[in-house]
Amino acid sequence: MDLRPVFLIIGILLSALAVSMVVPAVVDALAGNPDWQVFAVSAAVTLFVGVAMALTSRSGGLHLTVRQAFVMTTLSWLVMTVFAALPLAFSELDLSYTDAFFEAMSGITTTGSTVITGLDSAPPGILLWRALLQWLGGIGIIVMAIAIFPMLRVGGMQLFRMEPSDQSDKAVPRATHIASSIAAIYLLLSIVLAFAYWLAGMSGFDAIAHAMTTIATGGFSTKDGSIGYLDNAAVDIIATLGMIMGGLPFILYLKTVQGNPMALWNDSQVQWFISIIIAIVLSVTAWLWFSGGHDPVQALRYSAFNVVSIITGTGYVNTNYGLWGGLTVPVFFFIMFIGGCAGSTTCGIKIFRFQVLYSAARTQIHHLLQPHGVFIPYYNRRPISDEVIVSVLSFFFVFGLSFALLAIGLGMLGLDFLTAVSSAATAISNVGPALGSIAGPSATFQSMPDAAKWLLSAGMLLGRLELFTVIVMFTRSFWRG
Amino acid sequence: MDLRPVFLIIGILLSALAVSMVVPAVVDALAGNPDWQVFAVSAAVTLFVGVAMALTSRSGGLHLTVRQAFVMTTLSWLVMTVFAALPLAFSELDLSYTDAFFEAMSGITTTGSTVITGLDSAPPGILLWRALLQWLGGIGIIVMAIAIFPMLRVGGMQLFRMEPSDQSDKAVPRATHIASSIAAIYLLLSIVLAFAYWLAGMSGFDAIAHAMTTIATGGFSTKDGSIGYLDNAAVDIIATLGMIMGGLPFILYLKTVQGNPMALWNDSQVQWFISIIIAIVLSVTAWLWFSGGHDPVQALRYSAFNVVSIITGTGYVNTNYGLWGGLTVPVFFFIMFIGGCAGSTTCGIKIFRFQVLYSAARTQIHHLLQPHGVFIPYYNRRPISDEVIVSVLSFFFVFGLSFALLAIGLGMLGLDFLTAVSSAATAISNVGPALGSIAGPSATFQSMPDAAKWLLSAGMLLGRLELFTVIVMFTRSFWRG
Repeated sequence: MDLRPVFLIIGILLSALAVSMVVPAVVDALAGNPDWQVFAVSAAVTLFVGVAMALTSRSGGLHLTVRQAFVMTTLSWLVMTVFAALPLAFSELDLSYTDAFFEAMSGITTTGSTVITGLDSAPPGILLWRALLQWLGGIGIIVMAIAIFPMLRVGGMQLFRMEPSDQSDKAVPRATHIASSIAAIYLLLSIVLAFAYWLAGMSGFDAIAHAMTTIATGGFSTKDGSIGYLDNAAVDIIATLGMIMGGLPFILYLKTVQGNPMALWNDSQVQWFISIIIAIVLSVTAWLWFSGGHDPVQALRYSAFNVVSIITGTGYVNTNYGLWGGLTVPVFFFIMFIGGCAGSTTCGIKIFRFQVLYSAARTQIHHLLQPHGVFIPYYNRRPISDEVIVSVLSFFFVFGLSFALLAIGLGMLGLDFLTAVSSAATAISNVGPALGSIAGPSATFQSMPDAAKWLLSAGMLLGRLELFTVIVMFTRSFWRG
Repeated sequence: MDLRPVFLIIGILLSALAVSMVVPAVVDALAGNPDWQVFAVSAAVTLFVGVAMALTSRSGGLHLTVRQAFVMTTLSWLVMTVFAALPLAFSELDLSYTDAFFEAMSGITTTGSTVITGLDSAPPGILLWRALLQWLGGIGIIVMAIAIFPMLRVGGMQLFRMEPSDQSDKAVPRATHIASSIAAIYLLLSIVLAFAYWLAGMSGFDAIAHAMTTIATGGFSTKDGSIGYLDNAAVDIIATLGMIMGGLPFILYLKTVQGNPMALWNDSQVQWFISIIIAIVLSVTAWLWFSGGHDPVQALRYSAFNVVSIITGTGYVNTNYGLWGGLTVPVFFFIMFIGGCAGSTTCGIKIFRFQVLYSAARTQIHHLLQPHGVFIPYYNRRPISDEVIVSVLSFFFVFGLSFALLAIGLGMLGLDFLTAVSSAATAISNVGPALGSIAGPSATFQSMPDAAKWLLSAGMLLGRLELFTVIVMFTRSFWRG
């Protein structure tokens, strides 16, 4: 396999990463923090490697085969993490490389699990870098979901192909145009969120950092207490709305501004997403109200914020919901898997797959009753091909299997059951906090053994890249050509 | 819908149940235990209702439509449980009707979860009745899997249709002939197991009771300590082999004696089943050896017995594996879902579905790499139709959803996370013991709230009848005709 086009793209991406390291370097320099040197050196190293890769591979051109696209996707995410971890490893936080890699992977995959305590007194450069990683990871995955995944057809993503034939020569410039429009929308939404947070009472710095990790449904905060540090209802509402915004398909924002104001409203994936959120928020609210000693308004605020945070895989916390008990522990466990819409910054199984599954199961039941009838499952008022159904259902199976193996691996490393299964779920769905006292909403992943951190990092990457993108590379037929 | 054919069959089944109640009545009478009257009265009531139902419905004939077959399957299992619970409710054990219903459902679905402590001093009639329920439930589900489920085509069971067209008039007499041959094999295997247990040192009564619950992969024991009460390696080995025998497709035993001695050996479902068992047993053995302070032979004995007991959904225990910790808790949790082969007495997802899923996922990966290639998934060297794949994958999805809802329901009733999720799993997979201190291998379900017992009973029925058989009756289109 000719890896030059792959290295060319990774080289370009690394150079961009290097440039973005300049931002925290400048902030730290302005704040008089010596960590600015760490960022500067990391930027220089990353830029050097990136430019060298791009220059030596430039003769290969930019046209990718399907196999090269698989390698490029997985490898670029991995290489970016390796370099993004550098400033974290060498900063005054004094993290081991394992911790730095875990933190960087958690950032770039918009997971939001952290190994750092003492955020409140951490240098601003590091805080900004963590937020920036999630922000870049967020726009990165949206672009992937629009430009790459439909071509790779992983887990039913071919549903979101933009035109009948993606092989046509017009597809690439068109995708580039769409990607830059969406990046502009992403930036705009971030600015709006930052402004709203600031108006609601956050400092300018915190507002910007939280806006970036909200729209990316990432969940890194600048405080150990996450967004709960302010205990501000307005901030909670802004965050809740912002996380939902991050969980919607960004291509529909583009259609909205391009003259189809009902694009979001008419999309069945969005309708399901909002309905599921409302149903679960109301159930948890009722539970908190009737059993937990919360008044109804308080119950609604806590329920809405934390349920939305977990469903979208953001991972902000404004109270230790691990203490709510009863109904809420299994609910918070299972909703980790749901995720948001395809083409958003969220991870997990994603709403459209549940729609396809529901549609297939429904057709199945009709077919059981009328064996000779013909029933066709629909998605968004269009029939779903058998290929897509099998693709989605295989995803569901491989997701379950990967989750089980990851949980067993963590159990082998000595973690208790609740920590093992919820950490596996939170990693593979890119959520953030797990459940239980070790890695739950009021704890960090710091105390876990190194091997568990590497396993969880692999789980995050696997989940972020829709499983098949990574798994396909471990098959014999991939390398046999 | 004309329910007469349904009532006719249920009437006949109830009459048979009444006749089988005579066995524990006689045993209790011989033992001089006053409970013989309870069995006699229950038998009379059940016989009266059964004969009345059969006689008043006899004009409908025995021919069932698909809709009637669905109603018959679910309703017969439910009605049998209602009457099978009578002797348990009125015996000197003094169970509430909830407890009696739970115990009867656990018996008839071959689950093996119990609410009774003090088995060692319980009257022999009750112990025999529990064993008999599992034994009848075991042969009942084998006959269903051969005669009914392929016709209902639930969850991919159409793979096991015996002839191209099941609508033909010859199908019924042929199925009747096959069913009685298989019942004879089932009886023979039970006798062999009873004899083996007796030779290994069990009393005659215990040997018969355990033989019945072994071949049915049921798991009820005559002792609170389950099979561990003897601490006898020979008994453990017999039980392990017996549970595996119960987990194999009974139709293949028939083929073996009908002159195809390699029928079992050549079946891919059997090959997978045995391979999966070997892989998991060896992993757990290695774990126990290297970390748990067991010597290798002891580790192999405990690992083989308990892993086979959980995979096949039997639920015997010979040591409190809940204390092994680490790797084993998630392993014992996830293997609950596996189950044995289709057409056996086991429940759970079942091996053939994993084969279909694996085959579909594999085809999927080939297809990702060669978008224009044609790849066909195979099962047992025959191509699998898209209909079967979607059917199996829908089963997987509905299984996951039912499990999640059941676990959330149990959480709502106040159970802790490990108890809630493992009880949901153990019920829907018809395993027996859950995990944790409340309902784990060294405990019973006695202390659970009544509502949890009803929920778990519903879960057992749902799992036993391959989910769709029950769920289909809750759809509007089922009743719209």
